[in-house]
Amino acid sequence: MSDTLGPVEVVGVGLLGTSLGLALRAAGVEVLLSDVSHEHVRTATGLGAGRPRSAGDVPSIVVVAVPPDHLGAVIVAALDATAGTGAVVTDVGSVKGVPLAAVADHPERGRYVGGHPMAGSERSGPLAGHAALFDGRPWALTPHLESAVEAVETVETMVRLTGAVPVWLTPAEHDRAVARTSHVPHLMAALTASRLASAPENHLALSGQGVRDVTRVAAGEPHLYGQIVAANAEAVLELLGEVRGQLDGLIEAVGAGDRDALEGLLQQGVLGTLAIPGKHGAPVRPTASVWVQVPDQSGELARLLADAVASEVNIEDIRIDHDPTRPVGLVELVVDEPRGEQLLTSLESRGWTTHR
Amino acid sequence: MSDTLGPVEVVGVGLLGTSLGLALRAAGVEVLLSDVSHEHVRTATGLGAGRPRSAGDVPSIVVVAVPPDHLGAVIVAALDATAGTGAVVTDVGSVKGVPLAAVADHPERGRYVGGHPMAGSERSGPLAGHAALFDGRPWALTPHLESAVEAVETVETMVRLTGAVPVWLTPAEHDRAVARTSHVPHLMAALTASRLASAPENHLALSGQGVRDVTRVAAGEPHLYGQIVAANAEAVLELLGEVRGQLDGLIEAVGAGDRDALEGLLQQGVLGTLAIPGKHGAPVRPTASVWVQVPDQSGELARLLADAVASEVNIEDIRIDHDPTRPVGLVELVVDEPRGEQLLTSLESRGWTTHR
Repeated sequence: MSDTLGPVEVVGVGLLGTSLGLALRAAGVEVLLSDVSHEHVRTATGLGAGRPRSAGDVPSIVVVAVPPDHLGAVIVAALDATAGTGAVVTDVGSVKGVPLAAVADHPERGRYVGGHPMAGSERSGPLAGHAALFDGRPWALTPHLESAVEAVETVETMVRLTGAVPVWLTPAEHDRAVARTSHVPHLMAALTASRLASAPENHLALSGQGVRDVTRVAAGEPHLYGQIVAANAEAVLELLGEVRGQLDGLIEAVGAGDRDALEGLLQQGVLGTLAIPGKHGAPVRPTASVWVQVPDQSGELARLLADAVASEVNIEDIRIDHDPTRPVGLVELVVDEPRGEQLLTSLESRGWTTHR
Repeated sequence: MSDTLGPVEVVGVGLLGTSLGLALRAAGVEVLLSDVSHEHVRTATGLGAGRPRSAGDVPSIVVVAVPPDHLGAVIVAALDATAGTGAVVTDVGSVKGVPLAAVADHPERGRYVGGHPMAGSERSGPLAGHAALFDGRPWALTPHLESAVEAVETVETMVRLTGAVPVWLTPAEHDRAVARTSHVPHLMAALTASRLASAPENHLALSGQGVRDVTRVAAGEPHLYGQIVAANAEAVLELLGEVRGQLDGLIEAVGAGDRDALEGLLQQGVLGTLAIPGKHGAPVRPTASVWVQVPDQSGELARLLADAVASEVNIEDIRIDHDPTRPVGLVELVVDEPRGEQLLTSLESRGWTTHR
């Protein structure tokens, strides 16, 4: 399969570009690397992500993996640079409307097919890259109305070679989807976290795991997320408008002591959490949590997991709630509801202090 | 120490009341149980949380552990029932202003000292109780201006017997603190999750770990959280007003393409995440994340932890990002920044597929 593909040129060898090169090389595809930073190209080449592109090279696919602000211009440049070669041009940008607008009037726009892998990391740069980054993750494919069928098939073939799972969406659908599942949640986390920045320290002493979870993504790099949100302004604004309307309703309900309205809003939230696809896309199953006290010493966590495994209950999820005041951590083991009692009894019998 | 205390009457033997009874019994304190539900009292008694209170009993401490809506009335009733005995009355309610208002005109209000343990669970009822529930967790103590010194000392003694760590706040400070660290984050999670309830299924296929974290607490029981928020309306409304003002600014910044304003707001969020006390109250240290692919089979997770331990790097946190499409999970191991490379190399050498 892979020998029907390539060479693939990756433009921009940061985290995503380098990871793509590594994944494609692992699949036996020839990879050409280019970046405004020769340093990045050297590093990615050294990691085995491909070889620097040289003048004579003729890629069959160009993958643009540059920051959101430069996406459109670099995609257009790639279409120009490959004029007449029939090369397919795609990208890995977080937003798909802006790059599409950039190629809208390009005579060879049919060779462009947008894409967006649902993979990343807080880290960036080629050294953060890894061949397994896309393995099993959704990769949105967003062909536009004039994308050539063969071009779409070529990009899908490349995506499957990385181990990613294609998810088909129109560019507009994609941008609305990520506004809802990624950009607006990030902004809401930032708004929530902002309330903490100004809080008295003794108030923050009451922080539990909940507020840590709600605000975690807000630690992301402001300049990058600023670019992403700005590039998806329309879809983000539509949802923020909904949020504002519901926030007004919430303020009114709390102010007026309207319990029914307040509970109705909280119920909406419960439904929202149930709408998120569960493990392996299956419907969410009811789970039980078992809390275990674990001394904060190297080895204790592994011993707990080994004991949990000995209880023959599959652990669905783990959360560590670090004790703010002493070297003991509370570890939450999440299992299928019917198995909770079995795990608890088993761990107790092995000397762990647990509760539900 | 414990023989200077008791008997302690626990009024309301749900999750918190039963757990308190179990913790105090474990410390050798005599515990009397009462609840409008005889069934609950029987269950808690059977679990060893204490014995049913009978007519002749004279408690030295009464701990009110009933739902927010009934807190004030039950505290007043407890002060009346113990008139002349000098018994101390405290509670474990999530909000402290409302119960204080209820006792404001009570002639023996000096015997009341508010409290709020930072411990709980999605589950409720006596069967969810456990003696270790409070161990190492913050327990807010909120004496009012007229609380008798001996009463405050008695409650502190009881709190320390449960293994909890007293955190001193005025009732008003406490309510502002939990509005910021708990109630408003919960409402923001609900607003964010509400956007998902109405989303097309193919859009939700792009959901990652971020949106799961931001919305997790929104799965909490609407009726209970409705009571809590309603009881802390003033502090919640003040913060929601701030959120609304900042949301307006966000909408304006995104609408006008004002990058500086947008990044400034995201930067505020970053500062907020850094303001949350780190592990053991220490300042947050820079961490590195190592991602590992783990087959979704009982035992694999434990094997990974065992190998991580063998690398002699202490795991600070674990997050499991369940692959939506296949039986492989991505596990994020969080370690101190300088140890990341060591863990990655060690795990790779043991045959794990990892990346940062």
